[in-house]
Amino acid sequence: MSRERLIYLPLGGSGEIGMNAYVYGYGPEDRERLILVDLGVAFSDMDTSPGVDLIFADISWLAENKDRLEAVFITHGHEDHVGAVGHYWERLGVPVYARTFTANLARHKMADRGQPEEMVRTVSAWPEMTEAGPFKVGFLPVSHSIPESAALVIDSPAGRVIHSGDFKLDETPLVGEPFDPELWTDVSKDGVQALICDSTNVFSPHAGRSEASVGPEIEALVSGAPNMVVATTFASNVARVKTLAEAGERAGRSICLMGRAMRRMVEAATTTGVLTSFPKVVSPEEAAMIPRENLMLLVTGSQGERRAASAQLANGKYNGITLKEGDMFLFSSKTIPGNERGVIRIINQFSEMGVDVVDDSTGKYHVSGHANRPDLQRLHEIVNPAMVIPNHGEHRHLREHAKLAGESGRASIVAVNGTMLDLSGKAPRVVQHVETGRTYLDGSVQIGALDGIVRDRIRMALNGKVVVTVILDEDDEPLGEAWCETMGLPELGRSDAPLLDVIEEDLTQFLRRAGAKTLANDDKLENELRRIARNTCREEIGKKPETTVIISRLR
Amino acid sequence: MSRERLIYLPLGGSGEIGMNAYVYGYGPEDRERLILVDLGVAFSDMDTSPGVDLIFADISWLAENKDRLEAVFITHGHEDHVGAVGHYWERLGVPVYARTFTANLARHKMADRGQPEEMVRTVSAWPEMTEAGPFKVGFLPVSHSIPESAALVIDSPAGRVIHSGDFKLDETPLVGEPFDPELWTDVSKDGVQALICDSTNVFSPHAGRSEASVGPEIEALVSGAPNMVVATTFASNVARVKTLAEAGERAGRSICLMGRAMRRMVEAATTTGVLTSFPKVVSPEEAAMIPRENLMLLVTGSQGERRAASAQLANGKYNGITLKEGDMFLFSSKTIPGNERGVIRIINQFSEMGVDVVDDSTGKYHVSGHANRPDLQRLHEIVNPAMVIPNHGEHRHLREHAKLAGESGRASIVAVNGTMLDLSGKAPRVVQHVETGRTYLDGSVQIGALDGIVRDRIRMALNGKVVVTVILDEDDEPLGEAWCETMGLPELGRSDAPLLDVIEEDLTQFLRRAGAKTLANDDKLENELRRIARNTCREEIGKKPETTVIISRLR
Repeated sequence: MSRERLIYLPLGGSGEIGMNAYVYGYGPEDRERLILVDLGVAFSDMDTSPGVDLIFADISWLAENKDRLEAVFITHGHEDHVGAVGHYWERLGVPVYARTFTANLARHKMADRGQPEEMVRTVSAWPEMTEAGPFKVGFLPVSHSIPESAALVIDSPAGRVIHSGDFKLDETPLVGEPFDPELWTDVSKDGVQALICDSTNVFSPHAGRSEASVGPEIEALVSGAPNMVVATTFASNVARVKTLAEAGERAGRSICLMGRAMRRMVEAATTTGVLTSFPKVVSPEEAAMIPRENLMLLVTGSQGERRAASAQLANGKYNGITLKEGDMFLFSSKTIPGNERGVIRIINQFSEMGVDVVDDSTGKYHVSGHANRPDLQRLHEIVNPAMVIPNHGEHRHLREHAKLAGESGRASIVAVNGTMLDLSGKAPRVVQHVETGRTYLDGSVQIGALDGIVRDRIRMALNGKVVVTVILDEDDEPLGEAWCETMGLPELGRSDAPLLDVIEEDLTQFLRRAGAKTLANDDKLENELRRIARNTCREEIGKKPETTVIISRLR
Repeated sequence: MSRERLIYLPLGGSGEIGMNAYVYGYGPEDRERLILVDLGVAFSDMDTSPGVDLIFADISWLAENKDRLEAVFITHGHEDHVGAVGHYWERLGVPVYARTFTANLARHKMADRGQPEEMVRTVSAWPEMTEAGPFKVGFLPVSHSIPESAALVIDSPAGRVIHSGDFKLDETPLVGEPFDPELWTDVSKDGVQALICDSTNVFSPHAGRSEASVGPEIEALVSGAPNMVVATTFASNVARVKTLAEAGERAGRSICLMGRAMRRMVEAATTTGVLTSFPKVVSPEEAAMIPRENLMLLVTGSQGERRAASAQLANGKYNGITLKEGDMFLFSSKTIPGNERGVIRIINQFSEMGVDVVDDSTGKYHVSGHANRPDLQRLHEIVNPAMVIPNHGEHRHLREHAKLAGESGRASIVAVNGTMLDLSGKAPRVVQHVETGRTYLDGSVQIGALDGIVRDRIRMALNGKVVVTVILDEDDEPLGEAWCETMGLPELGRSDAPLLDVIEEDLTQFLRRAGAKTLANDDKLENELRRIARNTCREEIGKKPETTVIISRLR
């Protein structure tokens, strides 16, 4: 029997921000008992994944080894950590552990996909620990931009690992437990083998600010506003939603929540006891009757999402409310890279309406939920692990974080998705590369990111589409002329004749001259027709469209 | 005869950043003699304009009134100011005036499109003025991120207008004329009716820094680098290219220019006398022989463009050179909003290669080419115009700039594309709304942004495509079965049978049951077949694809 070992394998979230999924294992080689930490999604974009609904980590390796899997542990309720639980649970079939608020959200995910909600089990925070095979796992509260985030304390015979989850060091987080350095020191005092650590803000040079710092600024802003105030933030940032609501209340305004996620999150936080007080809210119908200078709306859509409340207000009206000249719209949020166009679009729409937009460029109305560079250093010092394994970041973040750890003499390594590490020794050691990738939820079907399906859609978007149909009789003679349809192409080309006519004319001429051998050979005929259609388009309109050729034979 | 008036009409560049085109006119209503300032392009993106090559302002109004047009004046050589000259010249047919360097670039644009280069006429800077109908136009040097930028002094019987063009207030710009407050005071001393003014950086609260401030920082960075250094900036930012090259030279490195635009711009600047000195450069072949610690590459691709030198180096190799662990890549540039994804992609690729990436986040290695808020205020004060008309900005920029002007008691207005202003009075007055929009260069064809062509391509990218063909005989009876092709759709759906088979089966069943009336009616049959194909797809794969139905009748 081979030596027992402690392994770590990121399947998602290392080499990108999103779709977190981290495997830990303990046991003899290839027979390690496994646990999974987080099971999240990433979001599509037009550049690389048009029409895709959600992006998951490819968990094939884990599904193939499900007999070795003990449990799933969810650190917190953000979509990139819990979003795939409902979609993937059936392939894993093990209990899912989370703290109360996160478990509430995870159960919704299960229910949405027809999976058994009872497989989500609520656990208490540290010092309670859950056994899962050779592991004991505890949920150590951390502050983040959603309630009840937890770092995981993962004990195995090979020692203690701390998986930070997404975190910041906030001693006055407003909602949830403050960062408690003494507790962390205590948890770490007998030695920590490895700290697996959030890398998101490793490039932010200054220590992070507390959630408590934004309240007074927002209150001053809202108090000075002469007309209606609308504010947006991530609905799951319940502390911020509360900060905004209380600032509005102190400024003498009625608070109205708009957007499904905003109401649902406040409700979930109240139900689970995370939120013990919240200003009284009015319904949109009541809001419409309140003088605008006494009203503050809290709305979804901080990233400019097209269907969210913010975008609908920017388009004119939402829930019977229309913004007017002199109203104020506050982004109490940061634009996630890649979302700039959508956010700028609604800012300009508000500008056209005469609405004054305030964003986070001054740094006063938003603070990040992730630990900045000095905070990471501080956590390294408190935990004092034998090794630091950066996760939750693009390659540049992981690399910078590994360097940072190295600067204080700690062993570290950049381990992207698919890199299996042995954490048992003095330093992390790569022991295997596992095939990983992305799975797309496309409509109701899961497809591989490299299947070529989305690539074909991108090609149609760039090049347009031509369909050519030809009918041949029993003697392989063309019956009538070639017929074309185009989509996404101009109607007129260089010849100033309809593009369709020019293509059809060229195809028909070819058919007239084509030899019997060509006409009898489907492949040859198809290739020739495609080539001609594409070349004619290139000459006429300067584009070579995607082309489908349909040959029908009356046999 | 009606009163003569001075009009201003932005056709592009007001309400967006890009495709600048501003009309001025003087004369009786609807008989004003016209000039055009700038004729630029904007760039496409996957979200809104996939496959589009370039975006132009719709100049229909101007083309319809070309008999009243006297001339085009180009303020500077950036694509968003000069890029459409070659494409549109034929529709306008008037002389194009520009300073030497800009004229050099404009002639290339004309030649590229087979237009007469000699219609581009080189003018000297202020105090020389060019007559164009009722106007006299002078080119007042300003600093910007390209050589020989000019503000235009536009005199008409209704007084003097200053059109700032893109500018910053730089008293040590390294290349080109420093900002000369005395000259500007002198030009403005007899009264300026209107200042039409760049709004790009109105939200930047601190006074802009000089180009001279980045040289020492870059030199310190390059001197400290142990291995190869690669730097990117916009090739047209000749001053920056020179700053980078000189920093490299002082650090004892050979300089190599990579990317066509980089070499072409340095050449154009040297030919036109704009660049009087530049370090000796080595060819890529020579560079490959030089020890990497003695080498500095200046490359194209500061915005992560896929085909530029930076992206190709990130992919592995360019011109025989490969980056290695410990090399440094410097972005001496800012990422334009919307380009984040591309830039981040290459940063991560470099990170994977072990290349250290330095960006402008510290503010040390890049300065903007546009006037910041205090600089705008300073220019307002120096010029002291009766009115300030913000241009070159999205709506939010124009609105903020108009507010800023209002704060010091100047008349102002937000005039987006298509808003014709009368500038003759004490304050700007809207006199007409002209239809404007965007024209896409799509392959070799110009199409309207609202023609639906690009919308169809976006739909195919989001929804995929199905083609249905059915053949009917002389009696309107289906001949054989329905035939489908799909593109951009998964092969298997919910039934676990091939999607094509399921659709074809449903269509064939419909055809068997369809009545003679339906089979004889093309429209009805097409609609039914489309509906069935889409519904089957929705059930099988959760998507309703774009569908083309082709009905062939053997008559």
